[in-house]
Amino acid sequence: MGKKGQLYVFTGPSGTGKGTILGQVLERDKNVFLSVSATTRAPRGEEQDGVHYYFLTHEAFKEKIKQGAFLEYAQYVGNYYGTLEAPVDQQLAQGRDVVLEIEVQGAMQIHNKRPDAVMVFVAPPSMDELERRLRGRGTESDEKVQGRLQTARQEMGFANRFDYIITNDRLENAVADLLAVLAAERCRNRDKIDK
Amino acid sequence: MGKKGQLYVFTGPSGTGKGTILGQVLERDKNVFLSVSATTRAPRGEEQDGVHYYFLTHEAFKEKIKQGAFLEYAQYVGNYYGTLEAPVDQQLAQGRDVVLEIEVQGAMQIHNKRPDAVMVFVAPPSMDELERRLRGRGTESDEKVQGRLQTARQEMGFANRFDYIITNDRLENAVADLLAVLAAERCRNRDKIDK
Repeated sequence: MGKKGQLYVFTGPSGTGKGTILGQVLERDKNVFLSVSATTRAPRGEEQDGVHYYFLTHEAFKEKIKQGAFLEYAQYVGNYYGTLEAPVDQQLAQGRDVVLEIEVQGAMQIHNKRPDAVMVFVAPPSMDELERRLRGRGTESDEKVQGRLQTARQEMGFANRFDYIITNDRLENAVADLLAVLAAERCRNRDKIDK
Repeated sequence: MGKKGQLYVFTGPSGTGKGTILGQVLERDKNVFLSVSATTRAPRGEEQDGVHYYFLTHEAFKEKIKQGAFLEYAQYVGNYYGTLEAPVDQQLAQGRDVVLEIEVQGAMQIHNKRPDAVMVFVAPPSMDELERRLRGRGTESDEKVQGRLQTARQEMGFANRFDYIITNDRLENAVADLLAVLAAERCRNRDKIDK
């Protein structure tokens, strides 16, 4: 048995670009693996069970909630989404680093459950810039943008619970920062004796 | 006033290549500065006071020890060497990251005095490899090499007191690791609220 892998939680308000950052990081650091989420929504197109999602029925999902099988879960537009703890722990036991890309509320659920997780928060350079980016998408009504901004403001209030805060000012810098966090954490002495 | 700089202590047994690693890191990361040591030995060649060392008389050095002005100090072959706290704090106040490259014993002195310091230990891949490297220098008697190995074994016992342990297996990897530690620590949330 080699060294156990490290669990990472990667989150941030909608529009901060966390998906884009993580996508580039996963291409460049082949020693970290993205966790597969579970969902009750139906598979789309080429989506495969166990690859893109674990597809569960509503009944199966609720049963697993009762069993405490989820690291975090949430409901969104009538469907459940969540992270099953068992497959994450299996990968960690195999020495693989695992990253969860989840919403801030989900991240806060893990915060208490898994003190071993390294918690990374992506922040926008400013709320003005976040608004500009959300409007720049051009796909959402003013009301929806306002709603997202309101949520983002609340979510920013949780940033101080995280181990690292990466400000996504320039994408290439944010990608370099996350790669640095992964590399540095591999050198971290988890058995440090303080006195 | 911007953000305060971060203090780093960089150490490891003799022969682990800490000086070489740090030299390459300082060339590539221009936001971190090497602390200037104080010494009682005489300047050599082009050495300038305040640049290569702070040159002090024995009396001045001892007076500063009495004042508690040193973060750490040691005697070596009849001379004193040490790190004055005031110039380090001045640089940190200016927002500069400062790194001290010092011996393990000196690092342990700082450990207790400055809990704000990020402590980095360089380890050899193995004691056998360290012995090979020390002999490979070809400049020292077997007795001296044995003495260095004995000291290195003792020093390795302190590795578990450090925040990061970088194994110098290949120089380029060790340099990349230290650069990653510096970059990651800049994203670290020092005001993290745990509950």
